[in-house]
Amino acid sequence: MATLSDIGVSATINILTAFAFFLAFAILRIQPVNDRVYFPKWYLKGLRNSPLRGGAFVSKFVNLDFRSYARFLNWMPAALQMPEPELIDHAGLDSAVYLRIYLIGIKIFVPIACLAFAIMVPVNWTNETLERTNLTYSNVDKLSISNIPTGSHRFWTHLVMAYAFTFWTCYVLKREYEIVAAMRLHFLASEHRRPDQFTVLVRNVPPDPDESISELVEHFFLVNHPDHYLTHQAVYNANKLSELVTKKKKLQNWLDFYQLKYTRNPSRKPLLKTGFLGLWGDKVDAIDFYASKIDKLTKEMSLERDRIMSKGNSVMPAAFVSFKTRWAAAVCAQTQQCRNPTLWLTEWAPEPRDIYWNNLAIPYVSLAVRRLVIGVAYFFLTFFFMIPIAFVQSLANIEGIEKAVPFLKPIIEVKVIKSLIQGFLPGIALKIFLIFLPDILMFMSKFEGFISQSALERRSATRYYIFQFINVFLGSIITGTAFQQLDNFIHQSANDIPKTIGVSIPMKATFFITYIMVDGWAGVAGEILRLKPLIIYHLKCFFLVKTEKDKEEAMDPGTLGFNTGEPQIQLYFLLGLVYSVVTPFLLPFIIVFFALAFVVYRHQIINVYNQGYESAAAFWPDVHGRIITALIVSQLLLMGLLSTKEAAQSTPLLVTLPVLTIWFHRFCKGRYEPAFIRYPLQEAMVKDTLERAREPNLNLKSFLQNAYIHPVFKGVDETETEPASQESEQQPVLIPTKRRSRSNTPLPSKHSGSTSP
Amino acid sequence: MATLSDIGVSATINILTAFAFFLAFAILRIQPVNDRVYFPKWYLKGLRNSPLRGGAFVSKFVNLDFRSYARFLNWMPAALQMPEPELIDHAGLDSAVYLRIYLIGIKIFVPIACLAFAIMVPVNWTNETLERTNLTYSNVDKLSISNIPTGSHRFWTHLVMAYAFTFWTCYVLKREYEIVAAMRLHFLASEHRRPDQFTVLVRNVPPDPDESISELVEHFFLVNHPDHYLTHQAVYNANKLSELVTKKKKLQNWLDFYQLKYTRNPSRKPLLKTGFLGLWGDKVDAIDFYASKIDKLTKEMSLERDRIMSKGNSVMPAAFVSFKTRWAAAVCAQTQQCRNPTLWLTEWAPEPRDIYWNNLAIPYVSLAVRRLVIGVAYFFLTFFFMIPIAFVQSLANIEGIEKAVPFLKPIIEVKVIKSLIQGFLPGIALKIFLIFLPDILMFMSKFEGFISQSALERRSATRYYIFQFINVFLGSIITGTAFQQLDNFIHQSANDIPKTIGVSIPMKATFFITYIMVDGWAGVAGEILRLKPLIIYHLKCFFLVKTEKDKEEAMDPGTLGFNTGEPQIQLYFLLGLVYSVVTPFLLPFIIVFFALAFVVYRHQIINVYNQGYESAAAFWPDVHGRIITALIVSQLLLMGLLSTKEAAQSTPLLVTLPVLTIWFHRFCKGRYEPAFIRYPLQEAMVKDTLERAREPNLNLKSFLQNAYIHPVFKGVDETETEPASQESEQQPVLIPTKRRSRSNTPLPSKHSGSTSP
Repeated sequence: MATLSDIGVSATINILTAFAFFLAFAILRIQPVNDRVYFPKWYLKGLRNSPLRGGAFVSKFVNLDFRSYARFLNWMPAALQMPEPELIDHAGLDSAVYLRIYLIGIKIFVPIACLAFAIMVPVNWTNETLERTNLTYSNVDKLSISNIPTGSHRFWTHLVMAYAFTFWTCYVLKREYEIVAAMRLHFLASEHRRPDQFTVLVRNVPPDPDESISELVEHFFLVNHPDHYLTHQAVYNANKLSELVTKKKKLQNWLDFYQLKYTRNPSRKPLLKTGFLGLWGDKVDAIDFYASKIDKLTKEMSLERDRIMSKGNSVMPAAFVSFKTRWAAAVCAQTQQCRNPTLWLTEWAPEPRDIYWNNLAIPYVSLAVRRLVIGVAYFFLTFFFMIPIAFVQSLANIEGIEKAVPFLKPIIEVKVIKSLIQGFLPGIALKIFLIFLPDILMFMSKFEGFISQSALERRSATRYYIFQFINVFLGSIITGTAFQQLDNFIHQSANDIPKTIGVSIPMKATFFITYIMVDGWAGVAGEILRLKPLIIYHLKCFFLVKTEKDKEEAMDPGTLGFNTGEPQIQLYFLLGLVYSVVTPFLLPFIIVFFALAFVVYRHQIINVYNQGYESAAAFWPDVHGRIITALIVSQLLLMGLLSTKEAAQSTPLLVTLPVLTIWFHRFCKGRYEPAFIRYPLQEAMVKDTLERAREPNLNLKSFLQNAYIHPVFKGVDETETEPASQESEQQPVLIPTKRRSRSNTPLPSKHSGSTSP
Repeated sequence: MATLSDIGVSATINILTAFAFFLAFAILRIQPVNDRVYFPKWYLKGLRNSPLRGGAFVSKFVNLDFRSYARFLNWMPAALQMPEPELIDHAGLDSAVYLRIYLIGIKIFVPIACLAFAIMVPVNWTNETLERTNLTYSNVDKLSISNIPTGSHRFWTHLVMAYAFTFWTCYVLKREYEIVAAMRLHFLASEHRRPDQFTVLVRNVPPDPDESISELVEHFFLVNHPDHYLTHQAVYNANKLSELVTKKKKLQNWLDFYQLKYTRNPSRKPLLKTGFLGLWGDKVDAIDFYASKIDKLTKEMSLERDRIMSKGNSVMPAAFVSFKTRWAAAVCAQTQQCRNPTLWLTEWAPEPRDIYWNNLAIPYVSLAVRRLVIGVAYFFLTFFFMIPIAFVQSLANIEGIEKAVPFLKPIIEVKVIKSLIQGFLPGIALKIFLIFLPDILMFMSKFEGFISQSALERRSATRYYIFQFINVFLGSIITGTAFQQLDNFIHQSANDIPKTIGVSIPMKATFFITYIMVDGWAGVAGEILRLKPLIIYHLKCFFLVKTEKDKEEAMDPGTLGFNTGEPQIQLYFLLGLVYSVVTPFLLPFIIVFFALAFVVYRHQIINVYNQGYESAAAFWPDVHGRIITALIVSQLLLMGLLSTKEAAQSTPLLVTLPVLTIWFHRFCKGRYEPAFIRYPLQEAMVKDTLERAREPNLNLKSFLQNAYIHPVFKGVDETETEPASQESEQQPVLIPTKRRSRSNTPLPSKHSGSTSP
C-alpha cells in the first residue's frame, strides 16, 4: 500500500510535469511561428490573419520580446476574462455548457470538502483502531473511515454527512439543469433563421410502384400537412462519389508535393515508380502521372454524379421536408404520420453540417438488428477488456514484479524507484489502454445507425462512461488487489457486492489519488501543449504549404471531443462522490483537477477548438443522469461498507437515500428533459409571428432550396473550379446566417472530429 | 409431497365442483325470475324487456319446461357462435380483445404440450434416477426433468425444446400484436364521430393574475393553434356536490323503503328513532323525516351548484379543449405546448364516461410526490404480505398441523381427509388473501393521480401482477417448503437465485396443479354462477323494487375487471411457460383452464358484463410485455436448474435466449406500441376529409359543447325532475352516437366497477 510519502513523490512528479507543460506552452505559444497552432480559432473566425507582432525576419518565427516570457502564466486570467454570453457567441452553446460541467464539479466538491475536513476528518483522526491492529497502514488511512472502530456510534456522523452531501449535490444539479435548460431555450429563441428550424427529416419512406420517392414524399405531405408543406430535398446515396472525392484529394496532395519539389529544384523532373509502394516498376514523370490520374478521376466523378442525379435508384428512401412555418415543422417532427409506426418516421433535421450522411437510409428492421449486434459486441468488449488491464496492474504491483523478474529486485528496492513504480505505473497502464477505445466506440455508434454527429458522440460518451465505470473504477478496486476476486464477484449476492467493493474502497484511495494526478493534473496540462497538432502542423508547413490557404488547411483546431472528455470528467465525479464520505483526503485532488481543467479548457475553447456542429447543449440530460448514477453508486457502496462495520442500524436510513435520489432524478427528467428533446409550439409560434411581421415578403423557399445537399456535390463543384480550401467562402450558400460563430466550419462535414482531450 | 393419487382426488373434487356450478347455473339461468341476473346485458341494450316465456303466474318465476333442463350445457356452443366482428359491435373492442388473451394461451400451449408429450416425456420417463435415490417421489416427478441423471446428454433435448418453445411463443405473440394493432386501428377508423376524437385534455394551466382560467385557455389556444381551435370546457371541482348527490341517493333509498312499507301496511305509520343507528332518541314519522332531510339536501345542492358555477375558485386548472378537426387534436395531443414542460400538459381526452374526475386538478409536483409515496407503500405491501401467506401455508402442511394441534392427528391421518387438506387448502388460503387486494391496489392507483378509469385499471393490473409474481409464484416456491429460505434468498447471488428457484420448481409442480384446479377450474366455473349478484339482486327485489325501473337499477351486470382478471391469466402463462420444459405434465391442466375460461368469459361478455368504458384495447402492450416477462423468467429458471444438473456446457446457449427475447420485445415495442399510444396524422386527415365531403354543414361546436360535463351536474338535473334511472335516455346528449354498444352505460361514471372474476 502506498504511503503518504509515495503520494508526496507522485505529487511532486506530477506537479513538476504539469509545470513543465505550462512552461513549454508559455514559451511555444508566443512564438509567431506557432501562432496557427495555438490560436486557430481566431484565424478561422477571420479575426486574425497573421501573428500579432511584425518586425524583423527572425521575429516572424521566434519571439524576441523577453518581457513576454516573464508573464508565462498570463493566459490563465485571460482565459477567465471572457464573459459567458460572449463565449456563447464566440464558440457556441455546446462549448459554453460543456465548461459548466467543470464548474459543477467545483460547486459540488468545494463545500463538501470544507464540511468533510471540518467535521469528518477530526472524527476519523481521533481514533486508534488502525494503531491497535497489526495491519500496515498509512496516514491517509488514519483520515479515512477505516480508522473508526467496528460498531462505533461515530458512524452517525458519516450517515448525516452522506445525507448532507446528497442533498447538496441534488440541489446543485437541479439548479444547474434549470439554468442550462433556460440557456438552451434562450439560445434557440435568439437564433437567426436557420434551415433546420423549418425542416424535418423523414426516413423509411415506403417504396411505391407508381411514383418515385420524391413524388411520393411531396404527395404524402401535401395531403397530410396541406396548409404547411413547402418543399423537400431528396437524399442521394453518394457514398461512392464521396469515396472518389477522397481519393482525388489524396492524389491532388501528391501532385502538389511533386510540383513543389519541381519548383524548388527545376533542374530535375521528379520521377516515380508505378509498382507497389513505388518500389519497382517503370519510372514515369510524377507530375504527368498524377495529373493524368486526376484527370481520369474527374471524368469518373462527373459520370458518377450524372448517374446519381439521373437514375432513381440512387435516391434513398429518406428526405428533408421543409415547411412554411416553424410551428408546422415542430408539429411534424413530434407526431406520428402513418398507421405503420416504422414508416414515414419524422424527426427534427439536424443542422446540415451535423448530419452523418451514410446512415440516412437504414431501414427499421436493419436498425433493430444492428442495435442487437452492437449491444452484444459492446458487452464482450467491456467484459473481456478487463483481462489485459488486470494483467498489467498485477505487474505494476511491486511484489508481483519481484516475483515475475526476480533479478530486477535490487533495482526496484531502491526507494525512489519503488515510489515511482507504485505511484506512476498503474495510472499510465490504464491510460494507454483507454487511448485506443474511443475510436472503436465511435465506430460502433456509426454502425448502429445514428444520423447526426452529435448523437454519435453522445452515444459513444455513454458507452465510454460505462466502460470506464466497469473497467477503471470497479476493475481497479477489485482486480487491483487480486484478479481471482473477479470470479468470486460474479457469484456474490446483490447484498454482498456493495460490501465487497465498499470494503476495498478505503484501501484504494491512494491508488486513485495517483491516478487523478497522472490523468487529471499532468494530462490536462499536456492538453494545452497540443504536442501532436504542433508537430503535424510544422511537418505540413515544411513539406506541403505553399500559400496562405494551404497554411489554413494545415491547421487542425480539433474539437472538444465530447465522446472522450465528458466520460473522463464523470469518472472524477464518481471518485469524488464515492470518497467524499469514506476518504475525504481525496477531495482536494479532485477540486484541483476541476479548477485546472476549467481554466485549460476555457482557454482551449476560446483560442483553439472549432466545433463541427452545434447541438444547443443537447447532451445535458446525459451529464445530469451520470452524476446521479455516481451519487447512487456512492450511496450503495457506503451502505455496503457500513454494514461490514456492524453499523447495521444505519441501513434503513441509507436505503432511503438511493430511493430519494432516483425519485429526484425522475422528477428532474419530467421537469427539464423535454426542453432538450421537443420544441414547444408556443416558442415556434412566437418566432413565426415575429418573422412574419418583420419580413412579410420573405422568400423562404429559395432560402431552403439547397440547404440539405450532400457535401460531396458541393465538393465536386469546388474542386472543378478551384482546388480545395474554398469551402469557407462556399459555406454561406449552405447556411446563410449572420451568426459569426456558425459560419466558420472549415469543412462542411467532419466525420471523425474527435481528439482525446 | 403430493402423489398422483392426491392429484386425482383433487381433480375429482374440482371437476365435481365445476360441474355442480355448471349444473346450478344451467338450472338457475332458465328460471325467468333470474333472467335479469344472467342476461343483464340484453336488458341494458334494450333488446330484452322481460323473460322470454310467458304463461301462467308460476311460470313467471319458475321454469316448468322440463325439456330445457336436459340441455343444460347448451349455453356453451351458444357462447361460441357469435362471430368476432359482431362481438366487437355488441360488447366493444376491449372485451373482444380481452378474450383473445385466452385464445393466445390455447395457441401457445397446445402445440407446446403436443411437442412436449411427444418428445420430452419419453426422454424423461426412460430414466431411473429417481428410483435409484432414496428420496420419496411420485409418478409426476418421473415425467419431469428431475428424472434425468446429473450431467446426462439428454439435457440437450430440453435445450432444443426451450429454443423451440421460445420461438413459437414469440411467433404467436408477434402475430397477435399485429392483429390486435390492426383491430384497434380499424376500430378507431370505423368509429362514428365522437367528442374525444376532437378533444384534448389540458392540465396544469398556470395561474394568471389578470385572466380567469377559462379566458386564459381560450387565449392560449387561439394564439398557438389559431386555425384549429374551436371551443373548450372548464373543469369544475364538483367533489363536494358529488358527495351530496351520493348522500341524497342513500336517503332517497330509505324514503322509498319506508314508503313501500307504508303502502303494504297502511294501518301503521313507520316510525324511527333519530339517535345513533336508530337505537334510541325521539320517535318520529320516518317518511316525513326523510322527506324533509331530502328537501334540505336538495336546497343545499342547488346552492352548491350555484356556488361552483358562479365563483371562479371552483374552476380547476384544467380544461377540455376541442378543435375543428381530428388532425388538429392529434397534433395538439402529441406536442409540447409551452417552454415549461410541466405547464399546459396536453393529452388525448379519454371518453367522457372513462374520466376519473377527482384527479383532474393534481399539479405536477404533487403528482411526483404521490408517485414516490405510492411506490414505497406498494413495496411494503408486496414484501410484508408474504408473512401471513407463509404462515397459513406452513399450517396447510400435514406435518405442520399435526405438530401444532396434535389432538387432531387421528382425524387428519384418515386418507381422504389428508388428500383433501393437501390438495385443497394451500390454494384456498392463497385465494382468500388475494380477494382483498384489488381494492387496495385500485385505491393506490387513484391516489397516484391517473385521470381515466382505463388507466387506473391498467396500473392496478400491473401492480397486481407483480404482487402475484412475488407472492404467489416465488412465495409458493420458496416459502412453501421453508419460510427460513426467504432470508437466505435475499443474501444469495444473482447467479444462485435462479438456481435455488430452479431446483425447487420441479418439486412444486403438484402444488401448482392443485392451485390451477382450484383457482382456474372451479373458480372460473363459479364465476358463471354469479352467486353474489344473484343474492343481492333477489334481496333488492324483495325489499326495494317497486317498478320496472327499480328492477333495472337492481341489476348489477359488473364489468370484466381487467385489473384482477388479466393478472390471473398472466399467472397461468407464467406457470405454463416455466413448467413447459421442466414438468410438461402441468400443461394439460393449463390448457383446460384456458379453454374453459374462454368459453365462460365469452358467455359472460355476451350476456352479462357491461363495460364502463371503451379504451380500444389500449391494454395490449401490457399483456404482451407480461407474457414476455414470463418467458424470460422461465428461461432464467431453466438456466438455474440446468446449472445444478451439471449441464453447464448449455449455459452460453441458454444465456442467448433471454437476450434474444428482450431484443424481440424491443423490436415489437417499436413496431407496434405506437399504435396504442399515438394517433397517426394520416388517419386523422382521412377521416376529416371524408367527413367534410359527407357533411359540409356540420355544426361541430354544438356537438362538442356539453360533451365533457361533470356527471354530477347532469345527475342534479335528473334527480330534480325524475328520481334516477333516467340516465340511459339522457346518455345521447352526452355521447350522441349511433353505435348501440356505446349508448348503454346505466351510470355515467362508475368509479369502482371491478369485480373479481
